[in-house]
Amino acid sequence: MEGMDHLAHERNRTEFDVDAMKIVWAGSRHAFELSDRMARLVASDPAFRKDDRTRLGRKELFKNTLRKAAHAWKRILELRLTGPCVITEEEAGQLRNFMDEPSFTDLHWGMFVPAIKGQGTDEQQQKWLPLAYKMQIIGCYAQTELGHGSNVQGLETTATFDPDTDEFVIHSPTLTSSKWWPGGLGKISTHAIVYARLITNGQEHGVHGFIVQLRSLDDHMPLPGITIGDIGMKFGNGAYNTMDNGVLKFDHIRIPRNQMLMRVLQVTREGKCVQSNVPRQLIYGTMVFVRQTIVADASTALSRAVCIATRYSAVRRQFGSQDGGMETQVIDYKTQQSRLFPLLASAYAFRFVGEWLKWLYTDVTQRLQAKDFSTLPEAHACTAGLKSLTTAATADAIEECRKLCGGHGYLCASGLPELFAVYVPACTYEGDNVVLLLQVARFLMKTVSQLDSGKKPVGTTAYLGRVQDLLRCCCDVQRDEDWLKPGVVLEAFEARSTRMCVACAKNLSKFENPEDGFAELSADLVEAAVAHCQLIVVSKRKGEPDLTPATARGESDHHNKDEGFIDKLQQDIPGKGVKQQLQNLYYIYVLNLVHKYLGDFLSTGCITPKQASLANDQLRSLYSQIRPNAIALVDAFNYTDHYLGSVLGRSDGNVYPKLYEEAWKDPLNDSVVPDGYHEYVHPMLKQQLRNARL
Amino acid sequence: MEGMDHLAHERNRTEFDVDAMKIVWAGSRHAFELSDRMARLVASDPAFRKDDRTRLGRKELFKNTLRKAAHAWKRILELRLTGPCVITEEEAGQLRNFMDEPSFTDLHWGMFVPAIKGQGTDEQQQKWLPLAYKMQIIGCYAQTELGHGSNVQGLETTATFDPDTDEFVIHSPTLTSSKWWPGGLGKISTHAIVYARLITNGQEHGVHGFIVQLRSLDDHMPLPGITIGDIGMKFGNGAYNTMDNGVLKFDHIRIPRNQMLMRVLQVTREGKCVQSNVPRQLIYGTMVFVRQTIVADASTALSRAVCIATRYSAVRRQFGSQDGGMETQVIDYKTQQSRLFPLLASAYAFRFVGEWLKWLYTDVTQRLQAKDFSTLPEAHACTAGLKSLTTAATADAIEECRKLCGGHGYLCASGLPELFAVYVPACTYEGDNVVLLLQVARFLMKTVSQLDSGKKPVGTTAYLGRVQDLLRCCCDVQRDEDWLKPGVVLEAFEARSTRMCVACAKNLSKFENPEDGFAELSADLVEAAVAHCQLIVVSKRKGEPDLTPATARGESDHHNKDEGFIDKLQQDIPGKGVKQQLQNLYYIYVLNLVHKYLGDFLSTGCITPKQASLANDQLRSLYSQIRPNAIALVDAFNYTDHYLGSVLGRSDGNVYPKLYEEAWKDPLNDSVVPDGYHEYVHPMLKQQLRNARL
Ligand SMILES: Cc1cc2nc3c(=O)[nH]c(=O)nc-3n(C[C@H](O)[C@H](O)[C@H](O)COP(=O)(O)OP(=O)(O)OC[C@H]3O[C@@H](n4cnc5c(N)ncnc54)[C@H](O)[C@@H]3O)c2cc1C
Ligand SMILES: Cc1cc2nc3c(=O)[nH]c(=O)nc-3n(C[C@H](O)[C@H](O)[C@H](O)COP(=O)(O)OP(=O)(O)OC[C@H]3O[C@@H](n4cnc5c(N)ncnc54)[C@H](O)[C@@H]3O)c2cc1C
Ligand SMILES: [Ca+2]
Repeated sequence: MEGMDHLAHERNRTEFDVDAMKIVWAGSRHAFELSDRMARLVASDPAFRKDDRTRLGRKELFKNTLRKAAHAWKRILELRLTGPCVITEEEAGQLRNFMDEPSFTDLHWGMFVPAIKGQGTDEQQQKWLPLAYKMQIIGCYAQTELGHGSNVQGLETTATFDPDTDEFVIHSPTLTSSKWWPGGLGKISTHAIVYARLITNGQEHGVHGFIVQLRSLDDHMPLPGITIGDIGMKFGNGAYNTMDNGVLKFDHIRIPRNQMLMRVLQVTREGKCVQSNVPRQLIYGTMVFVRQTIVADASTALSRAVCIATRYSAVRRQFGSQDGGMETQVIDYKTQQSRLFPLLASAYAFRFVGEWLKWLYTDVTQRLQAKDFSTLPEAHACTAGLKSLTTAATADAIEECRKLCGGHGYLCASGLPELFAVYVPACTYEGDNVVLLLQVARFLMKTVSQLDSGKKPVGTTAYLGRVQDLLRCCCDVQRDEDWLKPGVVLEAFEARSTRMCVACAKNLSKFENPEDGFAELSADLVEAAVAHCQLIVVSKRKGEPDLTPATARGESDHHNKDEGFIDKLQQDIPGKGVKQQLQNLYYIYVLNLVHKYLGDFLSTGCITPKQASLANDQLRSLYSQIRPNAIALVDAFNYTDHYLGSVLGRSDGNVYPKLYEEAWKDPLNDSVVPDGYHEYVHPMLKQQLRNARL
Repeated sequence: MEGMDHLAHERNRTEFDVDAMKIVWAGSRHAFELSDRMARLVASDPAFRKDDRTRLGRKELFKNTLRKAAHAWKRILELRLTGPCVITEEEAGQLRNFMDEPSFTDLHWGMFVPAIKGQGTDEQQQKWLPLAYKMQIIGCYAQTELGHGSNVQGLETTATFDPDTDEFVIHSPTLTSSKWWPGGLGKISTHAIVYARLITNGQEHGVHGFIVQLRSLDDHMPLPGITIGDIGMKFGNGAYNTMDNGVLKFDHIRIPRNQMLMRVLQVTREGKCVQSNVPRQLIYGTMVFVRQTIVADASTALSRAVCIATRYSAVRRQFGSQDGGMETQVIDYKTQQSRLFPLLASAYAFRFVGEWLKWLYTDVTQRLQAKDFSTLPEAHACTAGLKSLTTAATADAIEECRKLCGGHGYLCASGLPELFAVYVPACTYEGDNVVLLLQVARFLMKTVSQLDSGKKPVGTTAYLGRVQDLLRCCCDVQRDEDWLKPGVVLEAFEARSTRMCVACAKNLSKFENPEDGFAELSADLVEAAVAHCQLIVVSKRKGEPDLTPATARGESDHHNKDEGFIDKLQQDIPGKGVKQQLQNLYYIYVLNLVHKYLGDFLSTGCITPKQASLANDQLRSLYSQIRPNAIALVDAFNYTDHYLGSVLGRSDGNVYPKLYEEAWKDPLNDSVVPDGYHEYVHPMLKQQLRNARL
């Protein structure tokens, strides 16, 4: 059995070129080779073993993470100097990524460094970045407090300027002002970017970031006046408990004035606030960047879960055996397909919209440099919305994949419980999903309200410029194949979103106070925002040429990297059958949304019940077409067994013997008779409990 | 702060009699007092402390569970003999329930004992039950194997009769035939009901249950030829890891012939199979019973999650402060309400449908005794469907409640991660939810196909008898208040379910082979089954008098216990305002379903888009009416802080200081500088990694 490919019969059925699809998934040959190399490097290094994670107590688990982080850093340093190929920042990032263990380094590289880059002055960057790059200091991002997360403006920590000493006094005036959640803070970080209300000369000037040293660089003890700890266990077993999310209280801590991040606002020696000439809007650029990585991470997490559930569904057999033959693979049941294949399609859809967001970030950055802020609000709304859409869908999808594996999905050995537990906070951090959708809705309502005044909506809202057509149009579908026309699909999604937005705007206009209306109708507004965001995934393409001059320039450099799903289908794609598979996936994604959100489409009159039923027929036929390619489509993600971390998802399909082997590793199996038997169970069986001391 | 009620302002707003509602929730005054007494007994006993559960390693965790189980049993024995009131079976069950820690005793009492009762002959019951009642033996239920769960007929374990010795030989012929999952098996059970293929004289006779001793009653070692172990970590931290789900292999184990459970089928000394005069249908009665308890458990788990999220939503404030005043309680946001209040309503709805199922079980039992099997298939389909519906909704709802708590919901201290992790397998065990819905669909299709032949559908399918009316009828709603008429709502749900069933039947009839059609259309069939099951929750009432003679008799004894939600609204309910609240909850439950499944209602033409929009308006207004009563409505569940196990859900609302306190208990906070710092972090900071040995 060992060494045999139990999924060979599946792989033999494949109708397309898997290697070509791997390149499409990775984004380019370069990207494929890079991630392939790093994945193998991690998988082959026993120091990065992770299969024992759920069996460790918190302290062991954490210590183990410290070991891995140090080992990874060591490897990176070695490869940089001596390796066959010099390691790049991108490769170092991938190495950390394939380690697949949340740790303080994520926040150091992902938040601390970018915050200094984005908000620090040139001098501040020159001073702090080299220290951070060499990890001579380790930083975290301390914004959220016990009492405030979503409402950043409500943070209570104060930074009061003391002109006598030219220092800020950082202070936690209440219990609820304790910093709470920052990753890496609890046990490791030596420094933090602390967000606090700036007070000078008795006046408040809003919330700003400050670089604060937390611990001694000699003995790692918190500096005097600073209280720090870990905030305790989080969802799941290993999961995010490898991270030291922390609590932090300040008792009048003094830092030099030049440790306020002053790129946008400066405090002078006298304590006066001076706006710099750097546009405040810059921060939106950073948010587009961060959220783009979150969308990319969503497609990664989702594709891992889908890979596990798809492979196991081909291994698992249940019912339907005739005359003692093999039973039916559960992947052949239509209910299983209708739950699984839309998730497979979503993984691809999110992957491509993530790539498109990368392009958007480049575009926004180029515009910012040219002092063109016109597309920023739209880009900001769009990334906020996609962050919310993709993380919510991914969290649900991971759990659905777990259920698709039946009872065995509930074992940690399936990898799915931990994947879920470690993933779900993405729905909350970097902006609570509902709060973000409300921001999108606000932007949409503003856009709609300005349509009459002739202001032309840009980028992903451009379709709203065709509001009159979209309010009137009728769906052309007569037979189920009609649903396979990109124009038909796009129009239906555009019409749905437009009509929901316009209906909301109309209802809002009935309120005297628009804010009251917004509050009262907010649940409807969120639904309109979701419809808009789904349209983005369905339609994503580089903006209309007239609106996006920046793109036009960069276009030829991007090598397939800057495109949405629909663009991919509009061009030649190398590799036998690859385009056909992508088309099938695209329409599965789209038609499944039509089915799932049928109420929207019908209530706005965008399609008829008959057309809905044709969409369903088409969907079933697409499932049949995808079915023989399902295993190959998840093979195309190119995940190592190490990275997947799932016995059910093993590439060779050798599930049962390995599940059996895995069981015996549980600490409970260290002894045949369990600890506690003699004290508690034996007296029970022997009716001697009455007098026992328990 | 200590001792103060931070939710007093909320409780003062209550518009109804909470104590009266507690009785309604509990089912009767007797039930309330019983559960109240047991909950307090457990909460006040430090031996039942559970707040350290997520911080323990597997072995400690498990040993601790053994201690608690022994302590609980000791308490039960003591109370039985010396307590002020003699403890009943019901009370003992409640005590275990409020312990809130899955353990081997659940399977012993919940599966082992009922299996012997249901499938054992009188002699077998006389021999084994007293041993089990005194816990002189501990039993589990070993059905599922590594390779087979849903398809019980596919189990591979064999029980071969050996006429020479008058014994059965129990054997695991393959790796996949290993028993896998049974709770209590891994480390504790001395005995098991083992399901195996019966073979006598070389002939197969299907799968049957056998009582098999697994471990020595002296030293607890597995008997020769038996291999047993724990199957390893499961979802979550504490969660279900207090249970020793196990693996079991037999190498030709011999048991006496009289240890086959022979109530229905007997094997004679010669190895001949003889059907007894006990009807096979009996097993359906047991399934109705077990699934009824699962529906009851769903309302319990859901109400716990809702209680936590509701209280915390009233404590949590975010945004909306004007002039330095208090910020808005997040429970006042309409998005929060539209996510939370339908779950609150579902908790009540599931509670009442659970009570109705209790009645159904009594009814079925009485009919069985009178040899009336006519309602059994319907009762079976109905309970299978409700099991699926309520467990799926509850699992999703717990996670939604966690998200409603923002970042803090991700802490184990919120209680929600563990509640989710321990709850979700209910979607899989006792029948995978999708497999169950397919059974419901099969029953519905059969019922529809028999309509023409004049066979009158019974019980929860009785409405299908009015198929012609329901295919034709139009919804009468003109204004939003019209949605508050029970007749309107019922008709809409009946019409939806009927039309979906009839459409499926019509599509099925296009297939030559009905089984092919069923397979191809199974996703649609599952949706029809869901629509039918939702109708049950919405409509539940004791069957039409002519169909349910058994009820009519028992009616006056049942004291509110045997009624669905809608019946409650049809009668006087003691307590100021109680009925009004129940009405509001009922319509929130119903109208939220209309909104969520709008595609069904519109595509079948049961309601118009305009009526859908009126339903939405009505829903918003109901949210406003429920809002001031929200805290009191969750107080009515009468959960102790111990049982809730959530800092966010504390009854006194004193969340922040307690969260802060809780954090410091994490083992990581045992030392200021964490274990591993010196080996791994210090060298990193000091650039001394290159030569370090990691
Ligand atoms: C794993 C994890 C890691 C984290 N890492 C960091 C970190 O490194 N650094 C850091 O600073 N922070 C971190 N955080 C904190 C995180 O950023 C916040 O939890 C997040 O911003 C959500 O805020 P909150 O917790 O205050 O939620 P809340 O805002 O309290 O949300 C509670 C509920 O209120 C609702 N709500 C809130 N406002 C509104 C509104 N205006 N309208 C309608 N509904 C509303 C929400 O939708 C939600 O249902 C982390 C959190 C987690 C879970
Ligand atoms: C926590 C826990 C405790 C348990 N305790 C016990 C116990 O005490 N004793 C015991 O004997 N067992 C126990 N079990 C096992 C449990 O009963 C099974 O896991 C359950 O019956 C589901 O079966 P399965 O795992 O084989 O799922 P599978 O049937 O393998 O399901 C896998 C997928 O296939 C789909 N599928 C299967 N058949 C069909 C079909 N015909 N049509 C369409 N789709 C199909 C399912 O919907 C699912 O998506 C326990 C399980 C768990 C998780
Ligand atoms: Ca643990």
